[in-house]
Amino acid sequence: MNSDFDWQQILSDCKQSIQAAIKPHLAAIHEPQPNLGRGAGGDFMKPSDLAAEAAIVKTLQVSGVSFTLISEESGVKEYGASPKGYYVCVDPIDGTTNLIHGLPFYCSSIAVSNTPMLNDVFAAAVIDLVHDEFFFAAEGKGAYRNGKQIHTSKTVSLDEAVIGLDLNAYKAKLDMAIAAALIENSKHTRHFGANALEVSHVAAGLTDAFVDVRNKIRTTDVAAGFLIAKEAGAIVTDPNNQLINVPLDPKQTLNFVASANKELHTQILSLIKK
Amino acid sequence: MNSDFDWQQILSDCKQSIQAAIKPHLAAIHEPQPNLGRGAGGDFMKPSDLAAEAAIVKTLQVSGVSFTLISEESGVKEYGASPKGYYVCVDPIDGTTNLIHGLPFYCSSIAVSNTPMLNDVFAAAVIDLVHDEFFFAAEGKGAYRNGKQIHTSKTVSLDEAVIGLDLNAYKAKLDMAIAAALIENSKHTRHFGANALEVSHVAAGLTDAFVDVRNKIRTTDVAAGFLIAKEAGAIVTDPNNQLINVPLDPKQTLNFVASANKELHTQILSLIKK
Repeated sequence: MNSDFDWQQILSDCKQSIQAAIKPHLAAIHEPQPNLGRGAGGDFMKPSDLAAEAAIVKTLQVSGVSFTLISEESGVKEYGASPKGYYVCVDPIDGTTNLIHGLPFYCSSIAVSNTPMLNDVFAAAVIDLVHDEFFFAAEGKGAYRNGKQIHTSKTVSLDEAVIGLDLNAYKAKLDMAIAAALIENSKHTRHFGANALEVSHVAAGLTDAFVDVRNKIRTTDVAAGFLIAKEAGAIVTDPNNQLINVPLDPKQTLNFVASANKELHTQILSLIKK
Repeated sequence: MNSDFDWQQILSDCKQSIQAAIKPHLAAIHEPQPNLGRGAGGDFMKPSDLAAEAAIVKTLQVSGVSFTLISEESGVKEYGASPKGYYVCVDPIDGTTNLIHGLPFYCSSIAVSNTPMLNDVFAAAVIDLVHDEFFFAAEGKGAYRNGKQIHTSKTVSLDEAVIGLDLNAYKAKLDMAIAAALIENSKHTRHFGANALEVSHVAAGLTDAFVDVRNKIRTTDVAAGFLIAKEAGAIVTDPNNQLINVPLDPKQTLNFVASANKELHTQILSLIKK
């Protein structure tokens, strides 16, 4: 780990502080949300998301870290004396729509990098805020769920696979050929509505792949999930089987396929090839 | 309620017995499942499903009910001295794939009718086995979540709606025009993988509609959810806006749209009209 800090401890502390911060907001489920304008990622900001972001910032500051925050909510902000040492890329709440509706599936996503590039993320956490779970990975050190090492599934055929699939294309054009190919050839498809956690589920072998090729998902949503998935054995590439390395930026979008293993990855890429 | 029995109590007792019965099976998540052949609904039977079914049967017997069981697992079986008095239509575990994979979304579905027809269901329970929730409805008496009355959402526009959408069409032909129309016109779509619970979420206002027009879903999966949704104010029809009344039979399939209100229902039906 390219750092003097104990990131596993710091990110675990973030989990505690986020959980405490969003508690009051969970009581307000189903109530109209105040208009706070749009966040840096383009979505409307919600009080729960801002509370979670503030909890993350506070925890990092208390831990003595100087850092550049790259957040779906606040955009890019520098904290501390030498903020270019660490880039902390966060989606404070991934699955805000679920949270607001009381649907039991949302998380926080925190990725830590030495540079403002996706491929330099070296520590990552995804925190399941409904089921109190902590997914963590450190580069070269494996991926962990509640402290126990995790590995991707051994399912090598789409005929037995559960595939996560983000098809949300509100006011956009869905690529129906790709959607149909994936749906008709995979045993089961799902979309729970919090991609960071769904990618972590691929890491832990709960599902066999996750596909999002809508050109809409942001680096802030998946930067942490990618490291967790790769450290658990997943293959993560773009639809052309190229490694994805993009700037950590709240506006940056990408397309990706995260598969449990090479065999599944090859099958999925062949289905979505243009 | 057309009955001398306290069905709310009996179905609540079923919840306790099912939860106890499946506990050992939750420890076996991710392990290979024994081959028990196909259930009456056509899916492979799993130990967790059979244990849940046995728990339901036992609870009804202890409560002194004679009944005809209509189950996705065991098919049609008569219990007690006068089994034509009550028809109990169950999917012991809806979302078995989720359960086996450790995905946190599965439930039990139990519908009680005076005849073997869907429209005569007069009491129903859907039990969220992950989040320990009890959805219950009695005909003409409203729908309840953990004892508190529930109502569908007031969202009247797809531009603000969260729509549940079952698109699973493994080795079948997906109607891509319908899928695209729904996905491109709804703010958010989801599929958690346990339709009985997803219909109950429409009832409780967590989502705004659920659509399944694949000609694949069985009455055993949705008989309970339909009563709960209707008693909470939902509109439930087939894609042609006709009321659905089919035999309670493990092999019977249907198509349906369950919407929070008339405004949404009209918009959804217009999108899926051929």
